Amino acid sequence: MTDAVRTDALATDAVRRHDPSVRGFASDNYAGVHPEVLAALALANGGHQISYGEDDYTAHLQEVFRSHFGERAEAFPVFNGTGANVVALQALLPRWGAVVTAETAHINVDECGAPEKVAGIKLLTVPTPDGKLTPELIDRQAWGWGDEHRAQPLAVSITQSTELGTLYTADEIRAICDHAHERGMLVHVDGSRIANAAASLDLPLRAFTTDAGVDILSFGGTKNGLILGEAVVVLNPDAIRNILFLRKMSMQLASKMRFISVQFEALLTGDLWLRNARHANAMARRLEAAVRDIDGVTVVRPVQANAVFALLPREVSERLQKSYRFYFWNEHTGEVRWMAAFDTTEADIDDFAAAIAEEMSKQ
Amino acid sequence: MTDAVRTDALATDAVRRHDPSVRGFASDNYAGVHPEVLAALALANGGHQISYGEDDYTAHLQEVFRSHFGERAEAFPVFNGTGANVVALQALLPRWGAVVTAETAHINVDECGAPEKVAGIKLLTVPTPDGKLTPELIDRQAWGWGDEHRAQPLAVSITQSTELGTLYTADEIRAICDHAHERGMLVHVDGSRIANAAASLDLPLRAFTTDAGVDILSFGGTKNGLILGEAVVVLNPDAIRNILFLRKMSMQLASKMRFISVQFEALLTGDLWLRNARHANAMARRLEAAVRDIDGVTVVRPVQANAVFALLPREVSERLQKSYRFYFWNEHTGEVRWMAAFDTTEADIDDFAAAIAEEMSKQ
Amino acid sequence: MTDAVRTDALATDAVRRHDPSVRGFASDNYAGVHPEVLAALALANGGHQISYGEDDYTAHLQEVFRSHFGERAEAFPVFNGTGANVVALQALLPRWGAVVTAETAHINVDECGAPEKVAGIKLLTVPTPDGKLTPELIDRQAWGWGDEHRAQPLAVSITQSTELGTLYTADEIRAICDHAHERGMLVHVDGSRIANAAASLDLPLRAFTTDAGVDILSFGGTKNGLILGEAVVVLNPDAIRNILFLRKMSMQLASKMRFISVQFEALLTGDLWLRNARHANAMARRLEAAVRDIDGVTVVRPVQANAVFALLPREVSERLQKSYRFYFWNEHTGEVRWMAAFDTTEADIDDFAAAIAEEMSKQ
Amino acid sequence: MTDAVRTDALATDAVRRHDPSVRGFASDNYAGVHPEVLAALALANGGHQISYGEDDYTAHLQEVFRSHFGERAEAFPVFNGTGANVVALQALLPRWGAVVTAETAHINVDECGAPEKVAGIKLLTVPTPDGKLTPELIDRQAWGWGDEHRAQPLAVSITQSTELGTLYTADEIRAICDHAHERGMLVHVDGSRIANAAASLDLPLRAFTTDAGVDILSFGGTKNGLILGEAVVVLNPDAIRNILFLRKMSMQLASKMRFISVQFEALLTGDLWLRNARHANAMARRLEAAVRDIDGVTVVRPVQANAVFALLPREVSERLQKSYRFYFWNEHTGEVRWMAAFDTTEADIDDFAAAIAEEMSKQ
Repeated sequence: MTDAVRTDALATDAVRRHDPSVRGFASDNYAGVHPEVLAALALANGGHQISYGEDDYTAHLQEVFRSHFGERAEAFPVFNGTGANVVALQALLPRWGAVVTAETAHINVDECGAPEKVAGIKLLTVPTPDGKLTPELIDRQAWGWGDEHRAQPLAVSITQSTELGTLYTADEIRAICDHAHERGMLVHVDGSRIANAAASLDLPLRAFTTDAGVDILSFGGTKNGLILGEAVVVLNPDAIRNILFLRKMSMQLASKMRFISVQFEALLTGDLWLRNARHANAMARRLEAAVRDIDGVTVVRPVQANAVFALLPREVSERLQKSYRFYFWNEHTGEVRWMAAFDTTEADIDDFAAAIAEEMSKQ
Repeated sequence: MTDAVRTDALATDAVRRHDPSVRGFASDNYAGVHPEVLAALALANGGHQISYGEDDYTAHLQEVFRSHFGERAEAFPVFNGTGANVVALQALLPRWGAVVTAETAHINVDECGAPEKVAGIKLLTVPTPDGKLTPELIDRQAWGWGDEHRAQPLAVSITQSTELGTLYTADEIRAICDHAHERGMLVHVDGSRIANAAASLDLPLRAFTTDAGVDILSFGGTKNGLILGEAVVVLNPDAIRNILFLRKMSMQLASKMRFISVQFEALLTGDLWLRNARHANAMARRLEAAVRDIDGVTVVRPVQANAVFALLPREVSERLQKSYRFYFWNEHTGEVRWMAAFDTTEADIDDFAAAIAEEMSKQ
Repeated sequence: MTDAVRTDALATDAVRRHDPSVRGFASDNYAGVHPEVLAALALANGGHQISYGEDDYTAHLQEVFRSHFGERAEAFPVFNGTGANVVALQALLPRWGAVVTAETAHINVDECGAPEKVAGIKLLTVPTPDGKLTPELIDRQAWGWGDEHRAQPLAVSITQSTELGTLYTADEIRAICDHAHERGMLVHVDGSRIANAAASLDLPLRAFTTDAGVDILSFGGTKNGLILGEAVVVLNPDAIRNILFLRKMSMQLASKMRFISVQFEALLTGDLWLRNARHANAMARRLEAAVRDIDGVTVVRPVQANAVFALLPREVSERLQKSYRFYFWNEHTGEVRWMAAFDTTEADIDDFAAAIAEEMSKQ
Repeated sequence: MTDAVRTDALATDAVRRHDPSVRGFASDNYAGVHPEVLAALALANGGHQISYGEDDYTAHLQEVFRSHFGERAEAFPVFNGTGANVVALQALLPRWGAVVTAETAHINVDECGAPEKVAGIKLLTVPTPDGKLTPELIDRQAWGWGDEHRAQPLAVSITQSTELGTLYTADEIRAICDHAHERGMLVHVDGSRIANAAASLDLPLRAFTTDAGVDILSFGGTKNGLILGEAVVVLNPDAIRNILFLRKMSMQLASKMRFISVQFEALLTGDLWLRNARHANAMARRLEAAVRDIDGVTVVRPVQANAVFALLPREVSERLQKSYRFYFWNEHTGEVRWMAAFDTTEADIDDFAAAIAEEMSKQ
């Protein structure tokens, strides 16, 4: 990568403005782009390609996604996760529809109300202990079909891996899909970190999506190493149509789509997606292991993907934040979230764990 | 550029899938990314940067935009032109607002109803001879304030350069802004091709925007040579606030924003934006000059930016389309649109003109 | 029941605040309620009836509407015309849909953008000479199916009788419906004054709706003599479902619906609707005949329903407005609109015509 | 007028279709219209009155509402409660706004998602033991101002009396308003049963609304004895404007508004509103007292307005439902809701209590 940078840098008015050696634990979207993805951009450049998705890279992308999600999968690149989620949910729901989701779901807490504001989608939320829905939890909101006073619960949305760093097993997803389908509901997976889930489950992507009965997926590329790019992936084309219109009217249609598609090609053709995800997960586990031995630090949630949630004295966290970026997850309890990314190094982890230990020792 | 490609290509699973020597005249968004912009991406890579626009590149971008649009300008990068337009119009309008615009405006004809569907914005359209509004044309729809039965015309949106390849002079824009402001309306410019306008007018960007009284601007980067990237630029911060919320809820907030911002830095720090636009404009004029001498081909609109609109026999157009991509602008009249891009070469123009002449000679 | 009404009329804290002898020509919705409709309210009163439309009056109303619109018709009472139109259009259109309509349509000019703002419906408007669409006029906007950049024209909305006091014949409506259906579009009729149309055409209601191929209708009760009440009438239940949800979420579901339904029963069981409409139409024709002989007054549109549009000196109109309420239809040309209502008397017309003649004589 | 009514009552094609002696306990909107209100309609009839709210009755209505809510109150009649709520909430919130409300609020559970679907309003819900918010409960959702990822909590909506038959004291409402205002939030009261609250609190309406700091109110007329009619009442005109546009675009503007306004005049000029509410409340308490002595029946919530919530064996409820209409409030627990209306008689209560006792005795 450094070579490429040196060469390219010769011919641009932009200048480097940051220290690329600094990494933190705030979010996997603080990371940049993987060099293999960056390299792919140049491949797609030059000459004219039809815009708005009729280019050769987007055409090929269908094969790439089918290799992961089965022969009926259809992939529609979009810009970001909120866009992917709102396009997907609109595809599942009539105007009077509602979606059952966990109270902690990104679509509920982190999208400035985009599902409601852009698409008029009502969210029927359920508190969960671990960010995961179950058939029983779904039933708390899945009722009232035919009652015109109730926005109709016609979809379920789960996040894999969840916002709390936890995972659904393939069986758990299958149970949710069966339960939903029996009630006439369709299932959406917010897969902003789906690669981390696959890596952790050690399963092919389709094993816990297509094969488990998921109808539509927001496939996350950005946190897995792209500059930007997510994809709405239709897994059940019998039930879901017209993504093209929904994507365009939802302002998620890229004109020079080849540059999003070629990034996905770089990510998904070989195992880059999996390497990135495995690495991030491993770094999270390394952090968990390191802090487990520090007195006064408690890891409070299972570390099943690339996030570590911990409790430690608030003043310790605040001192640590002077050197390392990370967020309080819960201002009231003082719980913090530490995220590992594809570019987190073992040294990053070890240094951070040492810093935690040192700050704790000052208590 | 070829060097960079060769190097980068070594380390990616993606492969080149298109012939970069093929260019056409269908749209300036068929072109790729300018090599200087591509090079900038690598600069911004590496290490962690705060996501969602708090990175060093986006911070610096404010200076860059201020150098073009004045000290009060505020720039908010977004993904695409529809996104920029809909965010900007929401910022101008209360829930009951409407925007006066030309019937041919992109927001009216090419966005799948996104202004209406995402933001409930009513468009009050006016037929125009050349894609340009005037105070008189605005008045055809600018009335009825205070009448609750009428969606309130509280904004005007013009496109510069227009969808018909024409231009507003700085004075024309000033007259529109004065007229609008006197009536309590704010003014939006859809500047998807604003660089082409500046190049053609031979004026600084601010001369026909900020200084003419424009309140908010959709600044187009994509057609000017970016991978993707537009910016909502607030020129009148007294009247317009809260773009941050509108951008997020409109699904236009990039997490790794540094990669959009650094592209704009590469484009706007020096004169790359202007070189690209001047070149595209010159290529359009070269095409106009070349076809003017061909019997049976009529250039039907002033060539003031990078578009040529022409009438020629439909069967000639259809034969030409086998070798060169371009669109019929009007299926009824047979009018065609030929767009030049930053990467169109003189040879491209000359070959195309020769092909037109040859096909015409077969009539 | 009669006892109850008689007694109750004596016992209310409200007082009469207006002079019931004053009538004007501003709008048919300046009129009150027909006494036979008012009387019906008391019938429906007393005791408990299931709310939200499961009462005995609404149940019976289905038969009433079927007697006019055929055995497959389904009627859904709502509050007002805007509500009926927006519910009906939502039933015809997916999220990405658009409706082709005349530029002068009430949904376009008189509903504060409710179709766009409440339902995200894009209106594709067509200028017309007389407020009437034709297949040819529809084709100006009915194109671009499958193109994701264009809000999809999947419905046509016409007004019968039109906002300009003109009428479609049954054949004209049939031609529109055939044309639309061939293109995969459905047809809505805004029948805010449909009774006036039936009276003028001297046809049963179904002859120019159900039998002409109309899919859904906004049936107007208010201007025909109700306190308030319109109905969404589904004529093609194969294509249109789920009005119940759309009505509720569009805030058009009355809890004590019996009181809307019983008014419709009073209107539509016998010929009250037709008597009211015939009378209003006759009064408009009487006015037309009277003013035809006045020098300097020109009736500028065919008087086919209950409206007279006329040109006369603006100062004459303004003097007349001191004694008689009516509106300028076009501020620029000075064209005025005079509406007759079910309660307009022959004396009202004769006095008004005399006043016009007198004011004209002063010129 | 009385003459007209008497005669008219004899002359309608509608017929009585229900048994006015049957009353139940399902909802206060199963009741009809109070005779004094019905009588008022005839007063407003006859002659022409300006439509859309410029009539003499609506003008006078302002005085009526000011007599109850203070000199700055402004009343805007609308059709129904959902309409009143959604108009009011739109007036409080920018496009990116959210409203904190109880999980059991009508706007959350009984409006088919109208706030979300019509107005893009995100609801931030809080579980409550008794349907009532408190400053502490509000704080569970009132946070994150300035964070663009969070729909901004800028309003609080409470229901008085609540959906659970409970009441806020004036002090409790004042505490909520103070708390909200300190945080830049405005306060809406859903007063669909506000008359019942005033009767139960034995306070003037303004004591727990205007004087407590409430900004806007949905004033309920329908359940208090109107045919239909609610009013959006602006109590804080400094903060809230433009209801006229919001009402129209939300499809809540009645053309013949005089007939809604005169009903409110009949209700609110004297003490009809209070008599109706006191009576309904008294009937609920009578029922509570009667069932308290029945073994196996538990009244599970405080009876503070006109609702009684009880637990009794499900099969008893189901047998009772064959003779008396009422709803299960909670299908899981078997909790039932019994509502008293303005027309519920002592005999109704006594008979019902006897029936409950009898059915219980069969267990």
